[in-house]
Amino acid sequence: MATVSARQVNIAIIGAGGVGQCFLFQLEQLAARRPSPKLVLTYICTSKKAIYSTDHVAISLGNVSSALAASQQAPLALPKLVDFLGSSGSKTVLVDNTSSQDVANSYPLFLSRGISVVTPNKKAFSGSYKLWQDIFAAAGQSGAKVYHESSVGAGLPVISTLNDLVDTGDEVTKIEGVFSGTMSFLFNSFAPTSGSGGKWSAEVKKAKELGYTEPDPRDDLNGLDVARKLTILARLAGLPVESPTSFPVQSLIPKELESVASGDEFLEKLPAYDAQMEQTKAEAENAGKVVRFVGSIDVATKQVRVGLEQFDLSHPIAALKGSDNIISFYTKRYGSNPLIIQGAGAGGDVTAMGVTSDLLKVLSQIA
Amino acid sequence: MATVSARQVNIAIIGAGGVGQCFLFQLEQLAARRPSPKLVLTYICTSKKAIYSTDHVAISLGNVSSALAASQQAPLALPKLVDFLGSSGSKTVLVDNTSSQDVANSYPLFLSRGISVVTPNKKAFSGSYKLWQDIFAAAGQSGAKVYHESSVGAGLPVISTLNDLVDTGDEVTKIEGVFSGTMSFLFNSFAPTSGSGGKWSAEVKKAKELGYTEPDPRDDLNGLDVARKLTILARLAGLPVESPTSFPVQSLIPKELESVASGDEFLEKLPAYDAQMEQTKAEAENAGKVVRFVGSIDVATKQVRVGLEQFDLSHPIAALKGSDNIISFYTKRYGSNPLIIQGAGAGGDVTAMGVTSDLLKVLSQIA
Repeated sequence: MATVSARQVNIAIIGAGGVGQCFLFQLEQLAARRPSPKLVLTYICTSKKAIYSTDHVAISLGNVSSALAASQQAPLALPKLVDFLGSSGSKTVLVDNTSSQDVANSYPLFLSRGISVVTPNKKAFSGSYKLWQDIFAAAGQSGAKVYHESSVGAGLPVISTLNDLVDTGDEVTKIEGVFSGTMSFLFNSFAPTSGSGGKWSAEVKKAKELGYTEPDPRDDLNGLDVARKLTILARLAGLPVESPTSFPVQSLIPKELESVASGDEFLEKLPAYDAQMEQTKAEAENAGKVVRFVGSIDVATKQVRVGLEQFDLSHPIAALKGSDNIISFYTKRYGSNPLIIQGAGAGGDVTAMGVTSDLLKVLSQIA
Repeated sequence: MATVSARQVNIAIIGAGGVGQCFLFQLEQLAARRPSPKLVLTYICTSKKAIYSTDHVAISLGNVSSALAASQQAPLALPKLVDFLGSSGSKTVLVDNTSSQDVANSYPLFLSRGISVVTPNKKAFSGSYKLWQDIFAAAGQSGAKVYHESSVGAGLPVISTLNDLVDTGDEVTKIEGVFSGTMSFLFNSFAPTSGSGGKWSAEVKKAKELGYTEPDPRDDLNGLDVARKLTILARLAGLPVESPTSFPVQSLIPKELESVASGDEFLEKLPAYDAQMEQTKAEAENAGKVVRFVGSIDVATKQVRVGLEQFDLSHPIAALKGSDNIISFYTKRYGSNPLIIQGAGAGGDVTAMGVTSDLLKVLSQIA
């Protein structure tokens, strides 16, 4: 067992993909800048490989990627990882940089052993309501902390702001916004506030080529990603939403293309369905508006919905640029003009920033 | 001396004006909602009266205002207050709901005795650079916390967001925005993006009647309030700005009216100077733009400035409504599209909300 030190905090990381790499860079810089508490990486794994030693020796942050590539160790099964981290004698933070449901499902186990969790993984907080309750109950009992700022809007201060509103006793009446960088880019190009925009299928193809969509664009167009984010915000606002499929979510995938085999085939066949989206755009234009893909939560009526809506050209949601997100909080204190947060809601650097800032919050409380 | 308890935190409050009353209401609700740590009000004062007892008995939160009105006790001198609070044996948070420079000047003394400070008071953080350094040095040495979210943009998450950007290693390149609710209201009415707007002097008079200005509107029009906020943000972004008068600040008070005796006389004489502002508005219109009163910080060139600037009609600063603030953070990670925070930046409830949320941050770390 490693030497116990109140001013040392062990870090364990699961996932070393896009966000994971950015986080490792930020963690290395952080550890260099802040001598106390001493941050010690004692475990890191991908889905295939891992680095750790039974006596919790510090892993050098300088060359983790190449060390991982060269490693012969397999990842520990999650219950074994809980035991491993729990036996170090030091305060420990688990950083989950995956989007794995399995890892998410084991948060209550980590938390109940006093291991804090920070993560951009939406799955834990938008899965079953029981998992949500188990996570916060475990944290409440052990005193371990759990933060997930980047699960909505990446590094934008969305979750911390909503928590501050609720925790200080404000009444959130409505939350509305554009929660998907992909959808933002698609509609800002397809139905701009000035000019005519491109054909729908062409914009989807362009977004895919620019790397703004998932490998299969249907994973963006089905609305589930936005529904997961809405589930998280609704629960934080006090609504016990059962799951991201327990409220109306409009899919932009034509029924006939739901079951085609691949994303490429989907893109090939999509132009035949452009007329539907053109009509939706024309209807908005005839009303002097633009169409956008938004999520909204009406707290009083407990209605959560995700789908297309029309907005005046002067509305902040219509004026959004590029792939930015925008989130408006309507509350009793803020009255008719909402508190608005806007900016990039996706990307490795800004997502990792949310994770790093969550880690700093945990350190300020446990170290 | 009161009984020592790790799960009790004493609260001392200076100031019971507009923000102070709203804070007391939020504190009462908070204490009722959260049993732990137990929040115990042991001192409260206005400039004339105080309530406290030498054995630190809890003051009932239910009827503080009437109790203050009826009190025969005078406030303790600040050094005596430090001794009083430092002798309780409990963790203590000082809530400064004044805009007093004297109270601000004594923060280092409070902090060095381990007493944490939360406040909307701009004076401490926008006064001399030496005071700024003394405050954070005292906090660093004792471990006491100091938070001042509401010193810029009231309850909007401006300071926490800037700190998160800096602390996670982002490079803030530029900060720009409308930092005064009064200036926002004046220019949104005087030079709207559609329609012609009223005469400048008439808008100033209207703003005063609606309670949007200080008793003497010159205290808003001189730009010092905005300069103080810019000083705070520039320092947090890493620029050692000496004072709010050490960079260019454009005053909207005509030279000839700087020394007239009263705000009323100023308002009477202001119409004679409308031509100047009309010309400023016309110049912007001729360029297809609108004029706004903004503050900006260019971190690379270390330039801070406050004054009139022209904006395209589609710019978020031009599209602002009512008396809202807007703050744009341009950073390396966020690239060309800034992270934007927007909403009410003044008012008792939202200012107190920032103070309450700061208090919660302190409690999470010390209790």
